[in-house]
Amino acid sequence: MKLLRYGPAGREKPGIMDANGQIRDLSGVVADISGDVLSPAGLERIAGTDPESLPVVDGKPRLGPCVGAMQKILCIGLNYSDHAAETGATPPTEPIVFTKQLNALCGPNDDVEKPRGSQALDWEVELAVIIGSRAKYVSEADAMDHVAGFAVMNDVSERDFQTQRQGQWTKGKSHDTFGPLGPWLVTKDEVADPHALGMWLDVNGERRQTGNTSTLIFDVPHVVSYLSQFMTLMPGDVISTGTPPGVGMGMKPPRYLNVGDVMTLGIDGLGEQRQTVVEARA
Amino acid sequence: MKLLRYGPAGREKPGIMDANGQIRDLSGVVADISGDVLSPAGLERIAGTDPESLPVVDGKPRLGPCVGAMQKILCIGLNYSDHAAETGATPPTEPIVFTKQLNALCGPNDDVEKPRGSQALDWEVELAVIIGSRAKYVSEADAMDHVAGFAVMNDVSERDFQTQRQGQWTKGKSHDTFGPLGPWLVTKDEVADPHALGMWLDVNGERRQTGNTSTLIFDVPHVVSYLSQFMTLMPGDVISTGTPPGVGMGMKPPRYLNVGDVMTLGIDGLGEQRQTVVEARA
Repeated sequence: MKLLRYGPAGREKPGIMDANGQIRDLSGVVADISGDVLSPAGLERIAGTDPESLPVVDGKPRLGPCVGAMQKILCIGLNYSDHAAETGATPPTEPIVFTKQLNALCGPNDDVEKPRGSQALDWEVELAVIIGSRAKYVSEADAMDHVAGFAVMNDVSERDFQTQRQGQWTKGKSHDTFGPLGPWLVTKDEVADPHALGMWLDVNGERRQTGNTSTLIFDVPHVVSYLSQFMTLMPGDVISTGTPPGVGMGMKPPRYLNVGDVMTLGIDGLGEQRQTVVEARA
Repeated sequence: MKLLRYGPAGREKPGIMDANGQIRDLSGVVADISGDVLSPAGLERIAGTDPESLPVVDGKPRLGPCVGAMQKILCIGLNYSDHAAETGATPPTEPIVFTKQLNALCGPNDDVEKPRGSQALDWEVELAVIIGSRAKYVSEADAMDHVAGFAVMNDVSERDFQTQRQGQWTKGKSHDTFGPLGPWLVTKDEVADPHALGMWLDVNGERRQTGNTSTLIFDVPHVVSYLSQFMTLMPGDVISTGTPPGVGMGMKPPRYLNVGDVMTLGIDGLGEQRQTVVEARA
């Protein structure tokens, strides 16, 4: 299933994509795409509803982030062997974990803000894992039982804020609109192999990133199990699993985003996003 | 006002401490201590209610975290000049920001879990700032307008997870129960000077930390304004402002917590906490 949220920011309704690519209103079945709705039982309940029986959503509504509530967004750094090589970094021996604050979350096609003083605004197409049920001290063998599905995330980053302003990376990862998530959550039953997905990102129509989840250093079950040793994962939590080669920081010389630039990005089977860069809003 | 939350974990009700130190039930006035309730208008509404008119809460209920919902917990590292000296670190030139995931949040007197494999479980008494209204690009001069009040936080930390497991500190800061917050939120009108508060922490009755917010490197208005340049602060958000000298990591040799140890801690005018260390739960 392709689960999504549509409507004005902050007032999104749950929806589902039918076989013809038409959005159907799910709000008669679930209140939102979050919490228990993402559990195996919750997803089974939606699966038992014929999309054709649901109201058609007319027009082309704005899409919101495909998950409506979560406790955290965790991100894995340098998790593609070819991207680690590109940055000159030694591949990590265990997952590098950083965080994106929830104010960053936005819809897949919303404008992306360039923060005041930003001179190094960068892009990162990533496979996001959506947690479906509470996970603490879970094994790799059991990890996928706690996953609801997958989505595209653009891990928008301000490199100077991330690396030149002391301390931890979250400073460069958490500006409003630095977390476009969607267009939809694809439930895991529809993703035959999450470790064989092509992914790409263009800036103004020019290809910048090309990758495949086959070069992930730490795969999805490993990352879920690993994180669950340090903190409890909750339904709706998002794990953005890292980016393949081609970020602006890795270009020689580096190339960053300016107001007016357009990012388009996608992952096989998970859909596409499109964002325009705008000045920061107060 | 001293605002608090009481009752079983996950089902806390809002309360207020009356002039006699008796908890009164606030649930007829507000749904929870969160969101708009923390805004100037929300706090004014509570202030307009005579606590003596509210139902007395009998007995000694468990206290929950004194804020009921938040988007994030941000923490400032090495923010006391005397603590920075203790760790041998150069005082930072701008705030070091790290994050504690929300699953870590717990009541002020709840048990603290020792994670599996932990050999360096440590304590940190801290002044927590509670945000009252949305703050983005706010000046230092305006920063306090966005603060609802203050509380005690124990920034419980696993030092090996924080520093030896690659990447960012959040791995050592986010285990369940690593964020006791309370006993209550003291509104800012009752804190004459947040930069002149004595603070202390004992382990098994032995003094370990003694400090005063007067040695903060970056004060509260600076920290709020600074963070608001990188991310939007939302009502209920918690900023834990750093710890004074006396952490286990700083002792020679280091001394860490074991199962059965009891931490007691407090800050002038903000109340006290008490936690017993237990084995991690699954």
